Amino acid sequence: MGEHYLDNSATTRVLPEAAEEALRLMTECYGNPSSLHTMGFRAKKALDSARETIGRRLGALPEEIVFTGGGTEANNLAILGAARAKKRMGQHIVTTMTEHDSVLNTMKQLESEGFRVTYLAPGTDGNIDQAELEVAIGPDTVLVSMMLCNNETGTILPVQAAARAIKRKKSPALLHTDCVQAFCKLDFTVKGLGADLCTVSGHKVHAPKGVGALYVKKGVRLLPIVHGGGQERGLRSGTESLPLIGAFAKAVELAPKGAGALEKIGGLRELLLSDLAELPRVEVNSSGNGLPYIVNLSALGVRAETMLHFLAERGVYVSAGSACGKAKPSHVLGAMGLPRERVSSALRVSFSRFSTEEDVYALIEGLRAGLSSLEKER
Amino acid sequence: MGEHYLDNSATTRVLPEAAEEALRLMTECYGNPSSLHTMGFRAKKALDSARETIGRRLGALPEEIVFTGGGTEANNLAILGAARAKKRMGQHIVTTMTEHDSVLNTMKQLESEGFRVTYLAPGTDGNIDQAELEVAIGPDTVLVSMMLCNNETGTILPVQAAARAIKRKKSPALLHTDCVQAFCKLDFTVKGLGADLCTVSGHKVHAPKGVGALYVKKGVRLLPIVHGGGQERGLRSGTESLPLIGAFAKAVELAPKGAGALEKIGGLRELLLSDLAELPRVEVNSSGNGLPYIVNLSALGVRAETMLHFLAERGVYVSAGSACGKAKPSHVLGAMGLPRERVSSALRVSFSRFSTEEDVYALIEGLRAGLSSLEKER
Repeated sequence: MGEHYLDNSATTRVLPEAAEEALRLMTECYGNPSSLHTMGFRAKKALDSARETIGRRLGALPEEIVFTGGGTEANNLAILGAARAKKRMGQHIVTTMTEHDSVLNTMKQLESEGFRVTYLAPGTDGNIDQAELEVAIGPDTVLVSMMLCNNETGTILPVQAAARAIKRKKSPALLHTDCVQAFCKLDFTVKGLGADLCTVSGHKVHAPKGVGALYVKKGVRLLPIVHGGGQERGLRSGTESLPLIGAFAKAVELAPKGAGALEKIGGLRELLLSDLAELPRVEVNSSGNGLPYIVNLSALGVRAETMLHFLAERGVYVSAGSACGKAKPSHVLGAMGLPRERVSSALRVSFSRFSTEEDVYALIEGLRAGLSSLEKER
Repeated sequence: MGEHYLDNSATTRVLPEAAEEALRLMTECYGNPSSLHTMGFRAKKALDSARETIGRRLGALPEEIVFTGGGTEANNLAILGAARAKKRMGQHIVTTMTEHDSVLNTMKQLESEGFRVTYLAPGTDGNIDQAELEVAIGPDTVLVSMMLCNNETGTILPVQAAARAIKRKKSPALLHTDCVQAFCKLDFTVKGLGADLCTVSGHKVHAPKGVGALYVKKGVRLLPIVHGGGQERGLRSGTESLPLIGAFAKAVELAPKGAGALEKIGGLRELLLSDLAELPRVEVNSSGNGLPYIVNLSALGVRAETMLHFLAERGVYVSAGSACGKAKPSHVLGAMGLPRERVSSALRVSFSRFSTEEDVYALIEGLRAGLSSLEKER
């Protein structure tokens, strides 16, 4: 039985080239980048080069890149770091109801510290109303945090509009955007988005788990959340994980640019959608203009977990909502106002650039078999 | 020219077996441990097994181990997490002046949050007076943090005495110990030490940089410093870095136990000390009963950085104080009351179990040459 891994928004297989780079850095270039001797300088050079690669891809300066232990930590550093640094200027934050838990639970922490948070509700298409967004930004708003691409539905959110709204309202707010799902899939730059802070993660782009980066625009002041030796310009103390950082840079270097990859995945999505249309009782929850890498669908009448296990037995791997959410009903689909049955039967299919038509066929066959055999159990 | 890496307290070369394990987990077992399908279960199983290995080495239950992005993050989680959780019971903390920056700078953060911190001063031997320690612990002390082995001098601190003092004073204080330098070198268990919280790190024990663990005794409540998907029992959100965690476990599994390794390193230290005794103007700053892996010495009259570079050119790598401290004068030696010239010329030599007599000879030759040629520049 072949394996069809369609859970790439949960995590991706590490590129062989990236894994080899990690191996090389572990065994050959193992100095501490802070050490003041040859072994340290070699490590520092490799670290600088990785910082340049990640910066370049984001359209940022190397010194604007802070390496972290992952996307979650980068989101925490951005949000806690910015809000706490700006607390005296205001204690209001704007975000959306469909952010990742690493944003939403960080907001809860800030609420316990006295901040007031406005959570914008999405429409049934998963998107945010730009007029509502502008109204939400007040004179005491110090931070707006909006993901570029939703991890469960693929919805592309109006981050540029948020930047414009902040400007129009003459607000002191910083703009943070969680680009974990969009990075290396959509072509964007932090300047194009108008972002002050931007989160990316390694393991969603075929680098290993355990590394991420935060873009911090020159001049933006954050308070650190981890204290110590002062690495990463004092924003993230702790010896840098050079093997993972180097592997991250290698994966980013090898990630295709331009419209080609996106078109290929767009083709896979079209194939999937047209085949899904022939299945009974399947509803698609992703809107047509989202990131084609993610298709959220509901196989009505079959609980997501049941279908997920059925598919897994056939070697087809998808997820029910996000991986982190485990079996909880999706807060994203709930916020979109989808009926309960559609939420409880929702599956996320997520492609990588290595996904194939065979993967789609296997999924469709699995869904078809599942719908017919699991129907009996209703 | 051969290379003689004697900076193993800054970081170590990754064991080939550990690096291979990381590679395997990156390319073959790449699922997200939180995913509810076969790929996720495989990853979760590998994660559980690593947790068991680390726990076993510490004499702890698997569920008492929280994986982090390194020793610094583990120290932050322990100290911030415990103090903030216990804030209502008291706002006093006891630590020492010779802790690592990841402890000292975290204490500064807590001072800014209203905590009062007592920093115990060491004697000229680098150690802490147990009577002073006991006096320092008051009814409002909620945390005592003391490293087991100092990273600059090798001094072994009286952690067990701290546990006893807390008990005798009927204090509600939790005991945290930073065992980054002691782990896999000294044989200890968290129970033997009487610790509630214990920090260890991968890259000091021939695992890769970017992974650490915090032992959290069953029943001890901490507040997390990173919020999100709730991984690691809610104490450290973010997808676990399975490749690094697996490599960490592999390195720990292969680390020798018992007195043999310590005796071998003790022999290297004796060799080094007896050869140093024949050099002019060299003072040894480490006491004789510390961890033999670390020998701190001053080549009087030559600035540490100058000697460090001179040695590095000959392929001998040591450090001036800790790697993180870069070129700052050592706060540890300063606290011990050593004269300024001895502090500014202090070098740390740190062995691993792979260090050899040849490494010691190369160091001695380098020091001898340095002392004679750099003397002219005085």
